[in-house]
Amino acid sequence: MKQITGGVCAAQGFKAAGIHCGIRKNQSKRDLALIVSDCPASAAAVYTTNLVKGAPLLVTKAHLADGKAQAILCNSGNANTCNADGPQIAEEMCRLAAGPLGITPEDVVVASTGVIGQPLDLTPIAAGMAPLVADLSYANSLHAAMAIMTTDTLAKEVAVEFTLGGKTCHLGGIAKGSGMIHPNMATMLVFLTTDAAISSQMLHKALSTDVQSTFNMVSVDGDTSTNDMVAILANGLAGNTPVTEENQDFTVFIKALNTVTMQLCRMLAGDGEGATRLLECRVRGAADLATARTVAKAVICSSLVKAAMFGADANWGRVLCAIGYSGATVDVQKVDVSFASEAGRTAVCKDGAGIPFSEEYAKEILLKNEIEIQVDLHAGEAESTAWGCDLTYDYVKINGDYRT
Amino acid sequence: MKQITGGVCAAQGFKAAGIHCGIRKNQSKRDLALIVSDCPASAAAVYTTNLVKGAPLLVTKAHLADGKAQAILCNSGNANTCNADGPQIAEEMCRLAAGPLGITPEDVVVASTGVIGQPLDLTPIAAGMAPLVADLSYANSLHAAMAIMTTDTLAKEVAVEFTLGGKTCHLGGIAKGSGMIHPNMATMLVFLTTDAAISSQMLHKALSTDVQSTFNMVSVDGDTSTNDMVAILANGLAGNTPVTEENQDFTVFIKALNTVTMQLCRMLAGDGEGATRLLECRVRGAADLATARTVAKAVICSSLVKAAMFGADANWGRVLCAIGYSGATVDVQKVDVSFASEAGRTAVCKDGAGIPFSEEYAKEILLKNEIEIQVDLHAGEAESTAWGCDLTYDYVKINGDYRT
Repeated sequence: MKQITGGVCAAQGFKAAGIHCGIRKNQSKRDLALIVSDCPASAAAVYTTNLVKGAPLLVTKAHLADGKAQAILCNSGNANTCNADGPQIAEEMCRLAAGPLGITPEDVVVASTGVIGQPLDLTPIAAGMAPLVADLSYANSLHAAMAIMTTDTLAKEVAVEFTLGGKTCHLGGIAKGSGMIHPNMATMLVFLTTDAAISSQMLHKALSTDVQSTFNMVSVDGDTSTNDMVAILANGLAGNTPVTEENQDFTVFIKALNTVTMQLCRMLAGDGEGATRLLECRVRGAADLATARTVAKAVICSSLVKAAMFGADANWGRVLCAIGYSGATVDVQKVDVSFASEAGRTAVCKDGAGIPFSEEYAKEILLKNEIEIQVDLHAGEAESTAWGCDLTYDYVKINGDYRT
Repeated sequence: MKQITGGVCAAQGFKAAGIHCGIRKNQSKRDLALIVSDCPASAAAVYTTNLVKGAPLLVTKAHLADGKAQAILCNSGNANTCNADGPQIAEEMCRLAAGPLGITPEDVVVASTGVIGQPLDLTPIAAGMAPLVADLSYANSLHAAMAIMTTDTLAKEVAVEFTLGGKTCHLGGIAKGSGMIHPNMATMLVFLTTDAAISSQMLHKALSTDVQSTFNMVSVDGDTSTNDMVAILANGLAGNTPVTEENQDFTVFIKALNTVTMQLCRMLAGDGEGATRLLECRVRGAADLATARTVAKAVICSSLVKAAMFGADANWGRVLCAIGYSGATVDVQKVDVSFASEAGRTAVCKDGAGIPFSEEYAKEILLKNEIEIQVDLHAGEAESTAWGCDLTYDYVKINGDYRT
């Protein structure tokens, strides 16, 4: 497994593009992204569990019923959600892209992100399609990654190289956060591409398994978005024997996928709205996986823990409090808590009670950009990690005045 | 039912006191409160569901096993939680108060609020007991209300006068917030007193019923505290025929209780940490009460809704998003949303989709201090209200640097 560059263009036969078409007022912000495979690809996606679902998700779900797709079209600046004409608009977006690409609209995955409940005007998208298609290139992942950003401060791209049956394969992705991030069975917008040959059934199995331990363990603000989606295209151009069952190749593929998604999770959490710190809560010693996940997520979601981390305050009582109300069955008298970062590690709580520690050293640890909150439940072997970020003035600023 | 003054001293035979004994460094902040009934009283309490429970709660629960109490002792500045010697410290606090009051330690309700996981030094409490008892008076509810405050900006007192079987009765209370507020089956610290005669069984029934629609519907930050408690003493000095069953007097008593607790809820939410606005989400048209409550609480708890309210931004899409991920079964295509305040009311969403409205007028409405978010699910007759507050810079400030 080797880290490589290239994002969604790392895999053979994938072009990408991203332009400013005019949905967003700020002309320096790209707002329309396109990812295209040279040939039809196996495709799978997972979606938000929010009952309010963006129109693009409904259209994409219908288009992926046959397990095939060839392009992904995504705009930022408007979520096309809670609009009476949303589904028609999303269908029309697919038609606008399919025409110049010479494919059928049903092979287009469509996504939108931005404000909810404002009509999405097709005019700039229609006018932008020609320059968007002209921008397509095998080295343009970054343009696409930029065009799907909303309040993100960094474009997010990852890719790896791996081997299936002697053939070199690639898998890469782009992602956007950075608020309304609390996925449940699916996530924010993440688009993945691979040149590995794999059936759409196995692709869906790989993706839906992977999100349980990756994107579903990320929370920026506890709000599960209406438009969350992770989609993956696999065009098979690597020439490997197609993966059609749970064999060793499938295990390798899962590992490649997990390597990419895990890094995207860290990027998403670390670039959460207003964040100054990436928080990683590592729970071990849990009686079972569900308990480990529940505890890790409760800690990451606690407003008080998040605010304490912003203040580099080793207020471990809030960690214990979050574990206590998480709903998980935990013997709180056995819980140990430590804080760690590249500056070191300090234990702060043992057997559910405080222990002496140096506040100065703890501060030094917590002033770093990536913080680990380590929890040991001493009740078993299960482990889980959740990712989040601190709660800052800028989160309030960004969300107190988002639409204007 | 008449609003009166006097807080926990409104009822006959209740004295209160509040002093600075030295648990808190700031000498201008009272940190030790005492409420005493002239005679033994029926008593009941409900407690946090957090698995991590403050030592005072465990001690109080044991003391109330017989349904009787005569005094309430509470300190601020230290939660006496997650300390190995916590229970002994809490028991000793009860002994320190019982001595000069001439009652048994088992008739003392004890509570603590403040930082978790730091040893509670008994020295200032022991030294402060004499001046505390000396401060007791039938008109001192405010001192007690001030002494239980942590980050609260206002002391919270309410009282009402009502009639049971021709006898004039009184019921009043004090409360403290203002962070780590997301009660579940119990709540922050609330102490209630009444001179109505009522058995401890009926008192407990009244209290545990009432909190479902009052304190359990308040959230400041989604964090369920380790030390939440609502306790009530009923000393019977009003001379009414004791309430021992679910008769008409019980109904009147419930109404008096609810009148007081509802107002305390609004005070708690409006004075949430850093809050500039009280948010009240009124859900109607729900298929059942559980759905109404789940939806109301999800809206009130959404960080994005809270931040939008801070910005006086009519971003109703976030309200719909919160309803969608609440877990309640709702037909989102039927949901209507309006914003209201003393400045007026404007509908913003009908049948799950946006409708035209004046942004200027909406802003005018949302700039007031008390905002109603009205949701109609059009699916039945059940209703519920939840209380919360906006998410502000000051919440981050207060909690990014709470311990130092």
